[in-house]
Amino acid sequence: MSVTAAKGFRASGVTAGLKPSGKPDLALVVNDGPRFDAAAVYTSNRCKANPVLWSEQASADGVVRAVVLNSGGANCYTGQRGFQTTHKTAERVAEKVGIGAIDVVVCSTGLIGVRLFEEKLLAGVDAAAAELDSEGGMAAATAIMTTDTRAKTVAITDAAGFSVGGIAKGAGMLAPGLATMLVVLTTDAIADQEALDAALRNATAETFDRLDTDGCMSTNDTVVLMASGASGIEAEPEALNAAVLAACQSLTAQLHVDAEGAHHDIAITTRGADSVDDAVAASRSVARSNLFKAAVFGNDPNWGRVLAAIGTTDAKFEPADIDVAINDVWVCKAGTPDADVSLVDLTPREVSIVIDLHAGTHEATIWTSDLTHDYVEENSAYST
Amino acid sequence: MSVTAAKGFRASGVTAGLKPSGKPDLALVVNDGPRFDAAAVYTSNRCKANPVLWSEQASADGVVRAVVLNSGGANCYTGQRGFQTTHKTAERVAEKVGIGAIDVVVCSTGLIGVRLFEEKLLAGVDAAAAELDSEGGMAAATAIMTTDTRAKTVAITDAAGFSVGGIAKGAGMLAPGLATMLVVLTTDAIADQEALDAALRNATAETFDRLDTDGCMSTNDTVVLMASGASGIEAEPEALNAAVLAACQSLTAQLHVDAEGAHHDIAITTRGADSVDDAVAASRSVARSNLFKAAVFGNDPNWGRVLAAIGTTDAKFEPADIDVAINDVWVCKAGTPDADVSLVDLTPREVSIVIDLHAGTHEATIWTSDLTHDYVEENSAYST
Repeated sequence: MSVTAAKGFRASGVTAGLKPSGKPDLALVVNDGPRFDAAAVYTSNRCKANPVLWSEQASADGVVRAVVLNSGGANCYTGQRGFQTTHKTAERVAEKVGIGAIDVVVCSTGLIGVRLFEEKLLAGVDAAAAELDSEGGMAAATAIMTTDTRAKTVAITDAAGFSVGGIAKGAGMLAPGLATMLVVLTTDAIADQEALDAALRNATAETFDRLDTDGCMSTNDTVVLMASGASGIEAEPEALNAAVLAACQSLTAQLHVDAEGAHHDIAITTRGADSVDDAVAASRSVARSNLFKAAVFGNDPNWGRVLAAIGTTDAKFEPADIDVAINDVWVCKAGTPDADVSLVDLTPREVSIVIDLHAGTHEATIWTSDLTHDYVEENSAYST
Repeated sequence: MSVTAAKGFRASGVTAGLKPSGKPDLALVVNDGPRFDAAAVYTSNRCKANPVLWSEQASADGVVRAVVLNSGGANCYTGQRGFQTTHKTAERVAEKVGIGAIDVVVCSTGLIGVRLFEEKLLAGVDAAAAELDSEGGMAAATAIMTTDTRAKTVAITDAAGFSVGGIAKGAGMLAPGLATMLVVLTTDAIADQEALDAALRNATAETFDRLDTDGCMSTNDTVVLMASGASGIEAEPEALNAAVLAACQSLTAQLHVDAEGAHHDIAITTRGADSVDDAVAASRSVARSNLFKAAVFGNDPNWGRVLAAIGTTDAKFEPADIDVAINDVWVCKAGTPDADVSLVDLTPREVSIVIDLHAGTHEATIWTSDLTHDYVEENSAYST
């Protein structure tokens, strides 16, 4: 059911013709209320796309009534005219839905530095507005796909009776500060901006921010959470946090397993850390080691590359204390070879790396992918 | 002539049998004086190999009389016994050459977490000591190769009459804080530890530290500079700095063009920066973007990936001011598409990226390689 699993929302997905493939490329999600509270998180990349520059302003007052998303172009580094295209898109949505343009969040994805075909985009908005439907969540989820091989959706119903729905897109360039991902979350709970913002930031910090498939950070990342209040249920903060977190966990896992060219889905857990930040730093450093990622592709339990990556961080640890397990085999204990590496089976798609720093009680997991021929192929041929 | 281009040095390279391939795998470089001043720089990785732990102590007093280098195993994370192996190696060199073990620097390269075959190593030292020769520089350069496709050597003669010679090995895992590289530099100039240290640190900061082929930092990097004084010429600091810098520049360029699996040698220059650190940060961020590197492999002038990488740094710039040129074609000016990307020819092996931040007067270049199928292949099959 995706974003329309929550009451008070309509959605649609259409083919605007922005993508040469002729696949659906424009989605619209509208909040029909009665409430319009919202929160949003954007890329921390300083080179932000025009839709992000616009949407940061649009969502700043905690009110979002519609989100329009296009693939087929990121509208980033397209100059003043590119910003005008974003603004016109918001105005056209506003006109068709009967709201103010400043309550419309715009999201774009695709190549940087390429101007969008404005007439096609605006005609697509007209078509999407005409097709808005309370069952349209899956159409919207499909229309935001780029190199994704499957649509990503989630629907959570809380025990108190409210729902959280969501859609996501993203397959490459997934890294912290949000990765090239566009996520729209909806809830029919009654919750104000402050509660939504807290729930969203808490959830993204533990989910999307810990997905680091290739260390590359996008210019267009956007995660929006809109609350319609249509269930009539006032969400307790804990319940709202838990439901939003569960929705983000599901979407993160779906993004992870659909990472471009991946042959292994790798979870790198650092435990025994002095702080969560230290655990994240150690795991992320391993997740960004091309040598480690290439070794996993080759089913090679090369744990030396794990240690070499940890050694570049400033996490608290003694080098001679570290343990490393690969798929539950402790190949390194206290900085010394332990179990025979021939016991490690790396043929399954899921790979678990556990690092124990023996420096504290905190832990964190970063999810990444292996470095494969398919990754190189997909990303060497993306724009040509 | 390599390390024996400088007077007062002998070198050799032998097959100790540490590598299954049966290729030469042990090198020895000895300073016969009359002076034994030296300086050294080691990996900044906190997980240091046993030879680095030993050599940091051995070179701390500014006196090094011999360097022994083995491939076939990094002797890293091999526990207390691994350290003993390093120590025994230094002792055996000392015994054969007639010096103290504490004046012997030991370097190892190869897999982490694998113990060296101690008997073969020590027998190799005996053989290498027996073959020491004032013409042995090329034999030493050849014996330290791992995945290198060619031996890397340099010989510089200063106008004042002193010489600087060098050998290097390294093909993958090349990143800052020195990469998996072992470098031995020799000079017959008269220069004390302080002058040598200044010359070496100045040179490595501008050469090896700016070579970043895959962002991965090794546990074993070592660069040693030994001065014999055998020319009888007291080097002026400026002349010594210039000669050592020239030697390091040559070896860096040789390492760059021999990077594992590379199809393009990429130089990323950031100019108009507020500081050299900012220029290095911006260039390095691009050099570490897998998406950018894969695009270059595909001959795809995808400049959006350059900007997306710069945006993750904290260098001083305004996003809308940045210019980007690829192979001299200014595809982006002031954050807006400029010259048509079809004008960019990426078929030559050498690729130049120039970024102008328009934020100051400083510049720096980082050298990297593209991300290719061959890189993935070589590094997925390294230990198996």
